[in-house]
Amino acid sequence: MCVPGCLEAIVRGSRRGLLAPPEPTGGRPSDRPGALRSFSRVVDLTHAVGPDFPSFDPRPSLITETVATLRRDGYNMRRWHLIEHTGTHLDAPIHYADDGTSADCLEIEDLVAPLVVVDIAARAQDNPDTQLTPDDLLAFEVAHGPIPAHSCVAMCSGWDRLVTSPRFCNADEQGLMHFPSFHPDAAALLIERDVRGLAVDTLSLDHGVSRDFPTHRARLPTGRWGLEAVANLGALPPVGATIVVGGPKIEGATGGPARVLALV
Amino acid sequence: MCVPGCLEAIVRGSRRGLLAPPEPTGGRPSDRPGALRSFSRVVDLTHAVGPDFPSFDPRPSLITETVATLRRDGYNMRRWHLIEHTGTHLDAPIHYADDGTSADCLEIEDLVAPLVVVDIAARAQDNPDTQLTPDDLLAFEVAHGPIPAHSCVAMCSGWDRLVTSPRFCNADEQGLMHFPSFHPDAAALLIERDVRGLAVDTLSLDHGVSRDFPTHRARLPTGRWGLEAVANLGALPPVGATIVVGGPKIEGATGGPARVLALV
Repeated sequence: MCVPGCLEAIVRGSRRGLLAPPEPTGGRPSDRPGALRSFSRVVDLTHAVGPDFPSFDPRPSLITETVATLRRDGYNMRRWHLIEHTGTHLDAPIHYADDGTSADCLEIEDLVAPLVVVDIAARAQDNPDTQLTPDDLLAFEVAHGPIPAHSCVAMCSGWDRLVTSPRFCNADEQGLMHFPSFHPDAAALLIERDVRGLAVDTLSLDHGVSRDFPTHRARLPTGRWGLEAVANLGALPPVGATIVVGGPKIEGATGGPARVLALV
Repeated sequence: MCVPGCLEAIVRGSRRGLLAPPEPTGGRPSDRPGALRSFSRVVDLTHAVGPDFPSFDPRPSLITETVATLRRDGYNMRRWHLIEHTGTHLDAPIHYADDGTSADCLEIEDLVAPLVVVDIAARAQDNPDTQLTPDDLLAFEVAHGPIPAHSCVAMCSGWDRLVTSPRFCNADEQGLMHFPSFHPDAAALLIERDVRGLAVDTLSLDHGVSRDFPTHRARLPTGRWGLEAVANLGALPPVGATIVVGGPKIEGATGGPARVLALV
């Protein structure tokens, strides 16, 4: 199922120079591939998922079926009937590009990446329609240094705490959802920075009210990936953690529930 | 869904002293919880899983169903109909104990663990019915030092290379499978060592010809977990790597496909 990645190669060759790049040295020394990374604790960035987990899709996102029991069969076992984009989950490039990489074919080195956490929780508390903007990213770089290439940039809006509440989707009377996400211009700047992954603690890489999903459409066809409905970003430092994306290795997957950890 | 873990607590309180314990210091200094761990490369220990992945179960272990397409809906998305114990996967304690911990409730610190790799591949090549014995473990400790508490011990039999061949299940004319695994006495010794996880590159924590699954029955009800059908163990050092078990966080899961990585 692994597509050779022609589109990715073309984009990789042409993505330099549109906006101010980071320092030519390519970020902090410890962020270079093959560099030594260290950690002493683990933070689980994954929500537990049940049949009632919030979803965009009107179809049931998870149904579990018992297929064996200890009493009858000697062991317990179930079958899941599961929509790929359920819970804390990965969006693979193929989700928005027929020739895009599927979840099983993403480079493993990309799935263990420096994690940058940009906190807009104070603003999001007052305005659920706020977005993470290029100005937020530039201010972040002034405070914390260049956002490294091949990293994952996460938006911390504090929305994970609402996951069991109707405020997580925050739908209005017309059914339009209101929650924060990346502004498309911020997503474009992070392509310039050669960032591999975006993560959000809300339901979508795109703004709740979006009807046309510009961040999905701009990023995923370039071979990049996303994580949606991530938890516990507020427990992490702005820089210095490593994200581990335990995404599914099911052939052809457009994404899927992922066990996402931070090594701090 | 998280069971308080009474059984685990009882076992934890009574498991000392049945067999010779490791050094009282509890293994290498770097293996203590909270110790600094370092790595510079990542090895994917996960097989890609399709509908034909080998299985014990006669039921289809994975069926994928397209529910949205880019052309029709603006994005690609599928539904999986998936048996929990498919592909490279986790066995949670509840798989063999109704009051056991489900996959979503395993301690995250236990799922990022020192990885010990015991290689019996040369012997397995000549004899598919061989088992990893207590003598193998004691010889390993003479060569490499005490097996640390809270680690994961993996059997490397070289069986992962057979995954696309009938030799992976290696069923005889009566349908009995022939592949290596842990001898029950080795599994018991590793409970003594307070090892949290066992991993095998074959289809079961139990020997292929086993009818009564003694290793499953002895280990899982003590709150420990297993990994089956792991790949690429031959690329790892005997000691020094860290395993990351990206197991599913689906409520009540008896196990499930896991993205398993080694940090080296």
